[in-house]
Amino acid sequence: MNHLAPHDVMVVCLTLATLLASAKGAGELAKKLNQPAVLGEIVAGILLGPTILGRYQPFLYDLLFPHTGPVPFVLDGVTTISVVFFLLTAGIEIDLSSIFRQGKTALLVSASGIVIPFAFGFVLAGAFPRFLGATEGTSRLIFALFMGTALSISALPVVARILMDLGLLRTEMGTVVMSSAMFDDLAGWILFGLVLGMINPNRTADHHVGHTIILVLGFALLMLTVGRWLIHFVMPFIQAHTTWPGGVLAFIFSLTLASAAFAEYAGIHAVFGAFITGAAVGESAHLRQRTSEHIHQIVTNVFAPLFFASIGLHTNFATNFKFAVTVVVIGVACLGKILGAGAGARLGGMDTRTAIGVGLAMNARGAMEMILGILALQAGVIHEPMFVALVVMALVTSLMSAPAIRALTRGKKSLTLKEIVTSELFFTHLTAGSKNGVLVEMCEKAAALAGNAPERFFRLVSERERVTSSGWRFGVAVPYARVTGLLHPIVTVGKVDKGVDFGARDGRPAKLIVLILTPNNQSQHDLLADAGRLFSQKEMVDRALAANSFVELVAALNAPVK
Amino acid sequence: MNHLAPHDVMVVCLTLATLLASAKGAGELAKKLNQPAVLGEIVAGILLGPTILGRYQPFLYDLLFPHTGPVPFVLDGVTTISVVFFLLTAGIEIDLSSIFRQGKTALLVSASGIVIPFAFGFVLAGAFPRFLGATEGTSRLIFALFMGTALSISALPVVARILMDLGLLRTEMGTVVMSSAMFDDLAGWILFGLVLGMINPNRTADHHVGHTIILVLGFALLMLTVGRWLIHFVMPFIQAHTTWPGGVLAFIFSLTLASAAFAEYAGIHAVFGAFITGAAVGESAHLRQRTSEHIHQIVTNVFAPLFFASIGLHTNFATNFKFAVTVVVIGVACLGKILGAGAGARLGGMDTRTAIGVGLAMNARGAMEMILGILALQAGVIHEPMFVALVVMALVTSLMSAPAIRALTRGKKSLTLKEIVTSELFFTHLTAGSKNGVLVEMCEKAAALAGNAPERFFRLVSERERVTSSGWRFGVAVPYARVTGLLHPIVTVGKVDKGVDFGARDGRPAKLIVLILTPNNQSQHDLLADAGRLFSQKEMVDRALAANSFVELVAALNAPVK
Repeated sequence: MNHLAPHDVMVVCLTLATLLASAKGAGELAKKLNQPAVLGEIVAGILLGPTILGRYQPFLYDLLFPHTGPVPFVLDGVTTISVVFFLLTAGIEIDLSSIFRQGKTALLVSASGIVIPFAFGFVLAGAFPRFLGATEGTSRLIFALFMGTALSISALPVVARILMDLGLLRTEMGTVVMSSAMFDDLAGWILFGLVLGMINPNRTADHHVGHTIILVLGFALLMLTVGRWLIHFVMPFIQAHTTWPGGVLAFIFSLTLASAAFAEYAGIHAVFGAFITGAAVGESAHLRQRTSEHIHQIVTNVFAPLFFASIGLHTNFATNFKFAVTVVVIGVACLGKILGAGAGARLGGMDTRTAIGVGLAMNARGAMEMILGILALQAGVIHEPMFVALVVMALVTSLMSAPAIRALTRGKKSLTLKEIVTSELFFTHLTAGSKNGVLVEMCEKAAALAGNAPERFFRLVSERERVTSSGWRFGVAVPYARVTGLLHPIVTVGKVDKGVDFGARDGRPAKLIVLILTPNNQSQHDLLADAGRLFSQKEMVDRALAANSFVELVAALNAPVK
Repeated sequence: MNHLAPHDVMVVCLTLATLLASAKGAGELAKKLNQPAVLGEIVAGILLGPTILGRYQPFLYDLLFPHTGPVPFVLDGVTTISVVFFLLTAGIEIDLSSIFRQGKTALLVSASGIVIPFAFGFVLAGAFPRFLGATEGTSRLIFALFMGTALSISALPVVARILMDLGLLRTEMGTVVMSSAMFDDLAGWILFGLVLGMINPNRTADHHVGHTIILVLGFALLMLTVGRWLIHFVMPFIQAHTTWPGGVLAFIFSLTLASAAFAEYAGIHAVFGAFITGAAVGESAHLRQRTSEHIHQIVTNVFAPLFFASIGLHTNFATNFKFAVTVVVIGVACLGKILGAGAGARLGGMDTRTAIGVGLAMNARGAMEMILGILALQAGVIHEPMFVALVVMALVTSLMSAPAIRALTRGKKSLTLKEIVTSELFFTHLTAGSKNGVLVEMCEKAAALAGNAPERFFRLVSERERVTSSGWRFGVAVPYARVTGLLHPIVTVGKVDKGVDFGARDGRPAKLIVLILTPNNQSQHDLLADAGRLFSQKEMVDRALAANSFVELVAALNAPVK
């Protein structure tokens, strides 16, 4: 067998280490700035790619990303496997049953949210193929179909994340948007599979287009019905007869790779097989939280950053940035999606403001458009400038979604403490004897529940504490912090029998500690306001302090203000 | 950049799916037969490799493992990355502080357990290089050094697993063996780094041997002192400032890849860098259980099977199996290690039987010898027959260890229930109202604690239940099962207020349920015997039934038999 020379192994390890460290570092930085991690990961790739490093440090660039020899194949193989596994997790997040259950509004939003942007993209690309960067040899029809598809897929993970951050996931709007986005994702990918099958430049077998289309539709249909049922049937068997979760993990990964191979054989890209497999696997109730957690963690933190950073390596983002093309693509993409999904929502009976909100949420794109872009670029359907425009469009639409919806949904009902407190985070007898001890204890408990690092909570809370002390009157202390990336506010309530000094004005030690951790300013403001309202009265504090069970605590927090 | 053609992507995905599924399947089968998983994984590779598939289905074999084009490079890259990550986890298991703390006996065992087998291997290889399969060009000294090293490394993970299975891990013998094996692992790898540095056939830079040795020793020393300290210092910072556990995961993987690249640069193999990094990372108290769990699960269940299966692809294990060579290698390996480690233990003051036990435990080899073998084969130091002999030796010594020690340690003190029960698994009010309901409830709780699948526990217990009913007299039921792969016995105690029918002879419903899950026959026998002794007396049962706290339960189980 052909082996890698030691120098090749060195380069592969060095390149992967550089890509992973930069991508993850930049991704974390982006999160700190309240932006999606994928933004940082792509920027890291652009910095390491031909755009910056290749231009200013060509020697280092050629060392890390040689163009000849076996190393590029290995790197291409690793990023391909990475994106295959990323699409597996994207598929797992699809909730098929909720798609099948969706109501009239969601149906209208999904249908109209795909048809309109598809039509916009199709017509535009059909009218101006050269301007938009279609390659010479590509048929106008294929290019138009590609553009239609590229503009109509929403980025489910991004959409979900935005809705969660805004606390809208469980509202009516959130439900409609989520099931529509799932449907769009699924439909968009099947659509793209068909387009890719039509391109078919140098695929495995000399299939007819018709053959490929039958294979794609057949595979999707079989996998989502029989396959899904088989997986659901086999999974408990594997869980019962193999070491857990190892057996299931290996099963899922093997199945994904096999489906990916089949998709390549059918004449479309491996990622399609992985996505459909993910959708089928994620459906099984037997997929345990901890199993999918292992997959999720390793994919989000190792495979996904590697893949997204590799996007930046494909081309020079400076020389291939064409302002006019990019603006047109962004404009048409936004118009088509907001109009399409928004009209669907309006037709479904939502008020105009909510309908626009639905359109804005569905407008967020992300990974999917970029993957389509790469595949089309590699298949020779589009030129580099169009690829760059698609990547930029995906980023811009993702970035604008959250602020736009936030601006739209001002004035919604404010949160109260009693909605947030949980029995797991109510402690009648904290043992620590000092302020920091109490805070550490409470942060640890909150972090365990939120699956987060206690150090981080504690650091943020004590940074806040350094600015103003959190001791209030009557023996209450309300430490708080804003924790970027939290899914929802966390309130931990603890009582300290002897009281600890939280620097209250009235000099009394705090016996009731209410730790408020919030993901954003709005929820922080709401909860602090509610705490202020409640604990400004001594009777309320005493009632909360007397609570020895969670029910009593809620009752105390629920008491009407006199 | 060079890109993979669709057909290449298909082959890569198909080959990885086949390797992973076969390796993991065979590994699970081996476990069912009470053998180490690695045995099954290697056998799967031999079946898929030139030995079987290549011989009988050459067309399929050439499709899966093409010898030309980019695919072999990608597969080689993926298996290299897999073994790098496997060595990371092997390194994490090394507990440096316990090595530095080890007492006189352990010191003697490690020293003598390395020096004697090394000397045996060195002398033998120096005397009969051709017979043992040294290649033409290799210097006698290098070959002798390699053989000495290959015979002197113990397989820490295998040793740990055997001791756990036998319940000896926390005995004096277990402690001595573990810290000696760790030391041997570390010393053996540094030794091998030096040997590899001397081979230096076509390495990155034209280092002198001296240069490489300085780099290897310097790297190991720095990483295990300053590096270890830096990691320990940086880790809480990363945990506090990034999403958890993603940031730490990416940090560890990047660091490992970077160290691997450095090791290749220094003139030795990437795995050395990964191993030392693992040792340094594993030392930090800030490495959380859940973080290392993610690494561990994905590596053991995806990367390790891929790597071990790939061992079988390197050569034809039938034609290259030379009986005489293999027997000599196995004989010398066993003799050297058992004698060396055993003599050290005897000198350290252990009785002869325990000393032999120590020698037998340390004799287990595993992954490490195989990795050394592959590297030496690729570097052209040894011929295929020697490689096959090393792999077989590693398997045989691993397989014989556990039965040999078991035969030796018959008659040790038997387990009692009160040593095994824990407060987490004592339930004063089970809610289920039927036998199966109760069993499911208890299995779920036991499985949650053991990180295992409740279905599996329940299946094994009900299979057992079908044979004989587990209801005893006086309202006690003692369901039990043997669960292969458990680390230690689990006893769950639950009380059902109303009682449920467990088919007891006296017709009384069971109110006290003691569920006993054991990894092996010995512990099962001990615990059932103890239960029988305790619950044959009505007073004892009543006392246990009256226990409303864990302390009262232990007191009841502790009561002297009248």
